[in-house]
This record gives sequence, C-alpha cells and structure tokens, in this order.
Amino acid sequence: MKIHYECIACAVNQAQKIVEMSTEDVAQRKRAMLFIAQRLGEFFREDSIPATDGGRLFLELYAFLGNDDPFGEYKRISTELARDVAEDIGRVDDLRTALKLAIAGNLIDFAVGYDPKKIEEDVLSLASQELYIDHSNELFSELGNAKSLLYLVDNCGEIYFDRIFIERICEEFPGLKVYVAAKEGPIINDATVEDLREARFDEIAKVVSTGSRLPGTPLEYASSEFLRLFERVDVIIAKGQANFETLSDLKDPRIFFLLKAKCNPISRELGVPRGSMVCVRGKY
Amino acid sequence: MKIHYECIACAVNQAQKIVEMSTEDVAQRKRAMLFIAQRLGEFFREDSIPATDGGRLFLELYAFLGNDDPFGEYKRISTELARDVAEDIGRVDDLRTALKLAIAGNLIDFAVGYDPKKIEEDVLSLASQELYIDHSNELFSELGNAKSLLYLVDNCGEIYFDRIFIERICEEFPGLKVYVAAKEGPIINDATVEDLREARFDEIAKVVSTGSRLPGTPLEYASSEFLRLFERVDVIIAKGQANFETLSDLKDPRIFFLLKAKCNPISRELGVPRGSMVCVRGKY
Repeated sequence: MKIHYECIACAVNQAQKIVEMSTEDVAQRKRAMLFIAQRLGEFFREDSIPATDGGRLFLELYAFLGNDDPFGEYKRISTELARDVAEDIGRVDDLRTALKLAIAGNLIDFAVGYDPKKIEEDVLSLASQELYIDHSNELFSELGNAKSLLYLVDNCGEIYFDRIFIERICEEFPGLKVYVAAKEGPIINDATVEDLREARFDEIAKVVSTGSRLPGTPLEYASSEFLRLFERVDVIIAKGQANFETLSDLKDPRIFFLLKAKCNPISRELGVPRGSMVCVRGKY
Repeated sequence: MKIHYECIACAVNQAQKIVEMSTEDVAQRKRAMLFIAQRLGEFFREDSIPATDGGRLFLELYAFLGNDDPFGEYKRISTELARDVAEDIGRVDDLRTALKLAIAGNLIDFAVGYDPKKIEEDVLSLASQELYIDHSNELFSELGNAKSLLYLVDNCGEIYFDRIFIERICEEFPGLKVYVAAKEGPIINDATVEDLREARFDEIAKVVSTGSRLPGTPLEYASSEFLRLFERVDVIIAKGQANFETLSDLKDPRIFFLLKAKCNPISRELGVPRGSMVCVRGKY
C-alpha cells in the first residue's frame, strides 16, 4: 500500500510521541522535531510505503535522540498487562473465535492506565463481533492442505493473544510446521524476536526474525534467510496495519491479513468502514 | 515567541485541515501533503515564529492548491452564528466582563454544528470565569490616560464579541481614538479588513489592515503605513495566540495580550496552566 495523504501528519504525530517518550528536556525535544521537519521530505514521496518509510525515519530519529528503544517502558507495562489477561482467558476452543481474539488484541492499547479486568471484557467483546470481510473459512481450508505457516506478529502486548490463536491452530492442524516472525530489534511498540521468546513462543513454533527492525514486513529490507522462508511457506498470516501496508501490493493469495482498519487510509484501501475488523486474503 | 517542539506537528495537522477543506480529491490532497513534507524544513528553524512561518507555509500551500481561501465557507457560517449570538447578548455594562467576553469569543469554534443558544451559554459562562493573569486594571488605567488604542483582532466570528468590548471602551473613554486592525487577505480562519467592514466596525473605530495576510502581527511583514500607526499609538490590545506569538518578544508595555492559552507552547511560555484565560501586559 502506497502512502495516503493522511500518512504525513500521522508520521509527524508519531515522531512527536517518540520524542516525548524519549526525553523530558524540551530543548532536546525541539531539536529532534526540527530534525524531523528537515528530513521529512526525504522519506515521504509519491511511492512511499508509510510503515517502511515512516519506520526508516523513526530509526533515524532514535539515532538522533541517542535512544534505541523509546517505547521500552511502555512495552514492558503493555506486555505484563496483556500476559495477565491472556493467562486469565486461557484457551479458546473455537478456531474462528481465537482468530478474532488475535485481531481484538491489536485494538487494545494496553499501557494507558488500563484495568486488566476491563481489557479482558473489551477483548472478549470485540472477539464476539462479526468480521466485515471474512475469508477465515478459506484460511482454515488452506491451513488444512498446508505443510507450513508463517505468522507475522505486530505489537508487543497482543502477541499473547496471537499465542492463544497459534496454539489452537497447532491443535487443529497437527501436521503444520509453524514459524512466527517478529522484528530484529525495537521499533515503536512492535514485538521483537526477544519478546516472542519471553512469551515462550519457542514451545509452540519456530521463532524467526524478519531480519529488519522496520514495522511490518518490508521484503526489500528483510534478511535473505527470512526471504527464503517467506518464499517457501504455504500460508502466511499477517497481523496488523503495518504488515498490510508492506505486503498488500504483492497480491499474494498465500497471505491472509488480520487487522482492524484503525485509520482512514487502511479503510479506504480495503473499501471497508473505519473500525472494521477483517480477515482478508492477499489476492482479494 | 519562538517555536516550541509541539509546533511542527501542529502546523502539519493544520496543513492537513487546510487540504481537506480545499478539495475532496484524495489524489490532490496527497500531492499537497507531499508538498508540505518537502517544504516543511525550509519554514521551521530554531528561531521560527510559529504563526509567521506556519502562515508563510500555509500561503504557499494555498498557491499550490490553487485555492485562495479554503476556510471561506467555514468563516461564512462562523460569522453568521457569532453575529446572531452577539446581537442576542447586545450590550455589556461592565468593562471587565466585556473584556472577558472578547476572550471567551476566541475559545468557541463556531462552525461545527453548534447550536446558537449553546454558544451563547458557553460564551457567557466563560466570561464569568476568573482570569489566571489579570492586568486588566492596568489596561483600563492606561486607556484612561491614552489618546489612541490599536486593537488587533484574531479570528472571524469572535470579532462580533470584540465589537461589544470596543463599544464599551468607546463609551468609557470617549476621547480615545480607536483603530482596529485585521489581515489584508484570508489566512486560515482569521478576520480580514473586509470582515471588519462587514461587521460595521467602521461605525465605532478606524479599520486598518496590518498590510499582511500572515496570522498575528509580524511587524517584518507589515505595511509601512501600519508600522507608523503601530509605533505611535499609546495602547495596544492584541487578541489570541498568533498575536502573542508575533509580538511577545517585543516586551512592549503598551501591549496587552488577551487570550486563552489553548496549547502547551503558549501556556509554557506564559507559565500558566493550559486552558487559562489571561489579560497580560507585554512587559510582564
């Protein structure tokens, strides 16, 4: 997905959030935002992919700020909260409900003074809602015929809900070889391979790195090892907006995007109302 | 006032609003926001004045969009609403209440499906609140000794509340020569000299142009005629944030800033909580 007009302001607003999470010093914040003003035009062009080029800009901002993980504390709190809630939910018997739970996990912003009881209610209530586009039957049918699945996670806390879904997939399709991929290092609130290991994904799947810290799965920045895996797997589940942004142009029927259309560009691209939850096949 | 770190994202968000008000065509919106991304660094530097340099950027954006007044329709609706409410309020006997009414007028965003009855309630309720910094006694004492007053207005709708205040000033200080200044041409939702004439300011004061379309009163862009007036008047009342941004560095004791600190940079600069209403003397 190429950049939409709203992506510019969104990236600048995210940059400001990064700066605020990085330092309390208003003089340093000002230097950093002036740096963003100077560099913005280099990163955003007609054909930019918002997640990729925004991510590249953010990594330059991290270097400028001398802070390699501004969201570190936010991620730590989110992870604890999500883990507690996921433990409480335990297992989900129905595969489609588990799929919707994984999408619902993506909606919840865990680290804003959120009561775990309330998170649990919200996640379960969202998981009971209908999908606006629902290719999950096709997904499950493909999984029934597949030998391998690559699962691309998105944010840190939500991986505990991905884990519940993946466990259910492993039970339903016991012959399936499952790979779960996350980022090589920290970028905004995305899950890293380290986060996957901490969440004990090693016990249920093979944990792999995209080879890049960029949000989503921009193949031109992936490691050759990851690329080989990506090319040979039978089915790919891609969670969240950044994975959609970086992979939707492939029109690859192996990919199933699981996301909530949180912003206008994504909902415009998918042709769904903003806020819709979807499970949409790559070639749709 | 020099730029603060939040001003960059704020300017980009305002640019997006301008673009959205200008055209429904998403392709044109995208080209315009990419133009902003390319030009941003030219306008925002260490010493930028947010209103001035943001305003210069917006005027370039107007030219790029081929739309000289994107807020035209918004301003028309705001003006009608504010005029009706001000007519309903009629006259205000107490000078300080009239001053606070003028500040309160600045707070209300008139054109968002607002019920006139509700506007009236909100404006009057705000006008009954205390000022966080209150140099109004000094202002009235200066006006008692002055021969001339220059009143710098801010947004379009609120000028109808300024008019009530100015009428009260004229009654209280009948010897005073009053000049009311607005922008030479449209910029965002600022009042122009044409708006002042439409609101019949000619009947109570001398209407003048700053000689510039830029928000606030950036003297380096003012006409020489305006500059001569600015230099010779005894007292200046400057409404709103943009006038504060462009004139606060002068530390001119003739100036009294009347505003609500709507954003963090302004409240940080004034040392008041965000949301405070103030009447603060230039040399404070």
